Amino acid sequence: MSRGLFIGRFQPFHLGHKSCIDFALGKVEDLIIVVGSSQISHELRNPFTAGERILMIKDSLNADPKIDHKKLLIIPIADINIHSVWSAYIRIMVPKYDTVFANDTFTKLLFNKDGTKIVEPPAHRRMELSGTLIRKRILDGLRWTHLVPLGTQRVIREVDGVSRLKQLSVISRGSGT
Amino acid sequence: MSRGLFIGRFQPFHLGHKSCIDFALGKVEDLIIVVGSSQISHELRNPFTAGERILMIKDSLNADPKIDHKKLLIIPIADINIHSVWSAYIRIMVPKYDTVFANDTFTKLLFNKDGTKIVEPPAHRRMELSGTLIRKRILDGLRWTHLVPLGTQRVIREVDGVSRLKQLSVISRGSGT
Amino acid sequence: MSRGLFIGRFQPFHLGHKSCIDFALGKVEDLIIVVGSSQISHELRNPFTAGERILMIKDSLNADPKIDHKKLLIIPIADINIHSVWSAYIRIMVPKYDTVFANDTFTKLLFNKDGTKIVEPPAHRRMELSGTLIRKRILDGLRWTHLVPLGTQRVIREVDGVSRLKQLSVISRGSGT
Amino acid sequence: MSRGLFIGRFQPFHLGHKSCIDFALGKVEDLIIVVGSSQISHELRNPFTAGERILMIKDSLNADPKIDHKKLLIIPIADINIHSVWSAYIRIMVPKYDTVFANDTFTKLLFNKDGTKIVEPPAHRRMELSGTLIRKRILDGLRWTHLVPLGTQRVIREVDGVSRLKQLSVISRGSGT
Amino acid sequence: MSRGLFIGRFQPFHLGHKSCIDFALGKVEDLIIVVGSSQISHELRNPFTAGERILMIKDSLNADPKIDHKKLLIIPIADINIHSVWSAYIRIMVPKYDTVFANDTFTKLLFNKDGTKIVEPPAHRRMELSGTLIRKRILDGLRWTHLVPLGTQRVIREVDGVSRLKQLSVISRGSGT
Amino acid sequence: MSRGLFIGRFQPFHLGHKSCIDFALGKVEDLIIVVGSSQISHELRNPFTAGERILMIKDSLNADPKIDHKKLLIIPIADINIHSVWSAYIRIMVPKYDTVFANDTFTKLLFNKDGTKIVEPPAHRRMELSGTLIRKRILDGLRWTHLVPLGTQRVIREVDGVSRLKQLSVISRGSGT
Repeated sequence: MSRGLFIGRFQPFHLGHKSCIDFALGKVEDLIIVVGSSQISHELRNPFTAGERILMIKDSLNADPKIDHKKLLIIPIADINIHSVWSAYIRIMVPKYDTVFANDTFTKLLFNKDGTKIVEPPAHRRMELSGTLIRKRILDGLRWTHLVPLGTQRVIREVDGVSRLKQLSVISRGSGT
Repeated sequence: MSRGLFIGRFQPFHLGHKSCIDFALGKVEDLIIVVGSSQISHELRNPFTAGERILMIKDSLNADPKIDHKKLLIIPIADINIHSVWSAYIRIMVPKYDTVFANDTFTKLLFNKDGTKIVEPPAHRRMELSGTLIRKRILDGLRWTHLVPLGTQRVIREVDGVSRLKQLSVISRGSGT
Repeated sequence: MSRGLFIGRFQPFHLGHKSCIDFALGKVEDLIIVVGSSQISHELRNPFTAGERILMIKDSLNADPKIDHKKLLIIPIADINIHSVWSAYIRIMVPKYDTVFANDTFTKLLFNKDGTKIVEPPAHRRMELSGTLIRKRILDGLRWTHLVPLGTQRVIREVDGVSRLKQLSVISRGSGT
Repeated sequence: MSRGLFIGRFQPFHLGHKSCIDFALGKVEDLIIVVGSSQISHELRNPFTAGERILMIKDSLNADPKIDHKKLLIIPIADINIHSVWSAYIRIMVPKYDTVFANDTFTKLLFNKDGTKIVEPPAHRRMELSGTLIRKRILDGLRWTHLVPLGTQRVIREVDGVSRLKQLSVISRGSGT
Repeated sequence: MSRGLFIGRFQPFHLGHKSCIDFALGKVEDLIIVVGSSQISHELRNPFTAGERILMIKDSLNADPKIDHKKLLIIPIADINIHSVWSAYIRIMVPKYDTVFANDTFTKLLFNKDGTKIVEPPAHRRMELSGTLIRKRILDGLRWTHLVPLGTQRVIREVDGVSRLKQLSVISRGSGT
Repeated sequence: MSRGLFIGRFQPFHLGHKSCIDFALGKVEDLIIVVGSSQISHELRNPFTAGERILMIKDSLNADPKIDHKKLLIIPIADINIHSVWSAYIRIMVPKYDTVFANDTFTKLLFNKDGTKIVEPPAHRRMELSGTLIRKRILDGLRWTHLVPLGTQRVIREVDGVSRLKQLSVISRGSGT
């Protein structure tokens, strides 16, 4: 049996993430989606809570009839501020896995140390499909809904995410107190 | 739409837990199963890691054809050692819910404070189906497999859980150093 | 100028504490009342939150016309789990002081290390006026209101403290899960 | 009965803060002044310890005969690095309140979530009365004493705050090691 | 090259520990002595600070001319309260090792998981040479100095350890507050 | 007897650090080398784990026949994020000392508060011998081995430190996710 791990912050969950999950589900029998930095929210780079991000993912995957939910777990993991111990921490928080799906250098650096097998999902419109760019488009008032699944659109609308992001942007531009 | 929350430590996941989940799934559309004290393991009262407990639950529910996995989330939550903030912490870690399924006084005490609706699942062989008693039966060499789903049996066998529990029992009886 | 420090957990604030404060205010010009273990509540030994304990103290002292509130500070301090650093932690959290009022051996042990001047307030009905005994009387349904100021009585009534304590007592007697 | 909450970092306590407190005391019966980020000090943006900041506030308010100290509490609160739980944490650390006095967007964002009533004190010489600008004036050797109460001036002098700030400025400009 | 790890709490460092170190130095080229629970002190079971325990070990080993100090490291490690990650944490805190010297079941349980080679030093007067028993003898006023090296005796005398232990014993017997 | 403290992050250990140690060993009988920020690694400014840094120091000092290892301790200390308590924390983690060797303003600021004696080692090729510059030279592909002892060179080679640093540099330049 093979089980994969796909790690992201999902701020927010977008079509690039969705395409990685589809790719991974073609390679392994079971897949664990780790919602990283789960304790962080209400920051410009991390506007959404773990609960909101889990719901974005769950709703988006529920809408896809090709996905078998028996094969999926969505697990939030808080940071533990000791980088070198992070991969050991993940290992006790989720069922045993044999493959990590990752594009980012940091995940690769930390899991390489362990000798875990790492697979890079093919890039899918990498220039557009990035949390950073999507957050920027939302702030700039540009169109962004075509870059995320309907589940993500719905959650952002329900929690009034656009105006939260704008308030966080005001805060991060700072104001003496 | 209604979403429920069912909280347990699941040390290990047993048939009483399974029966609560069946009960809850009859009352709400979606159910979030919270694996509490997720950071704790390798203690006599908490022998199994979060990953192992999640797997016990997932495998046991996968074996039940009546369960619709689109309606389920299994979320590990670490303790945060400030009791009064615990229910607020859970609220940001999981999607919004309206009902908490709980039998234990402590969960009821902390969620009551918030005005959350609490439902007590009917007791199901409460005398037998208790994590404490099952751990004790394992230690005493009594039959215990009839008290847990096959998924739990399989995980305990794979991680050599019986001998881990016995080692932890030796440790807790203490030995000067 | 002299400033004193009086440390307690105040679970709950009782007439013995009040009499220590009266004693201390006769010895120093300013007094800082430290509400220790401020992060802990909803435990059998620590039923009340920091906010509730601060209110017990504030209301009780407000009711005493002899007390000059310009001379008082009430400061909650969380535990920091490294005993030897605790007195250094208190020193940065409160204005500078020269005298510690303390009866308990542990406070004396940790502040002695620093060379701080320690004064023991005279014992005042020590057998009766103890948080442990008052919590026990509440649980046993015995009369307890004569042992605490009116402010404490009022706060316990408002937060339904008696039934909280009874629920915590049920919990601590344990119940397998 | 109405009780208000006024939150600041008070690095240092200045006349703008004082004017907010005067405003708030006209609106509520009791006022809790929360000294935020209490665990932080000896940083360029946060030079003063909680104890020093509490003393600035206490001394400044003691000097004002119009203030009734029975109505006031000054409570240091440490950060808890999980933004969404911060307002829940404050709620257990202080007596119950019904109004929050706040100008900054972040406090408003987090308390809005809870449905707490938020009142914005009128801006008072906002351009001048800002902790950031006052720290900058101190570093630049400009006049700053007219922007803070006498209590703040006295504390800064006693702890040699000007030279501490200059040392912290040297540090933050960095130096390879 | 071979490097060993020897872990203990050393409350206090006694002749049994010394004999384990001698044994280990016969098996490996380099030895790392880990002073565990380094953040804990001033408790009945853990009376001494990490600094005091390090000094007990260092002074005792300095007194033994057979020991080559180039081969030794003494490293304090704080607990990290997530048992399953503890061995991963140790691995980043000390130079790479290939052998763990351990008698206690818990260390063996956690390192076994990793596949690390574990060697049990031969028991040396196990009935007498135990931290628990030595602390008890000190408290009971029995002779204990023959059970620890001169370095340990000297440190305990210098920090007035006997009276600290007696104060901690009074505290742990409890006293209502 | 006199004992000194020399604190650094040692990212990596270089000839400037070595020369400070030689200087300090001429002034005090015993020397404690504190490896600061021990919990941090795998960051651009802090690439190496505590274990790796300890090994750099140990191997480099072992290679110097003039050094008496009985006089030395190498102690990793984790940050504790409350600056004002840091010097108190160090005091319990290491044996008692009377002199601190320090060049950096921050260490001087925090220890000055305590009245500890501070000695500044003479600057030794300060322009070249800096961790920041050495990390930059490694990243830029410039010669750097002449700036560190052989022990440091060997450890960096063994853990493939040059390529780790380059990966961390890629990460810190960021990439949207």
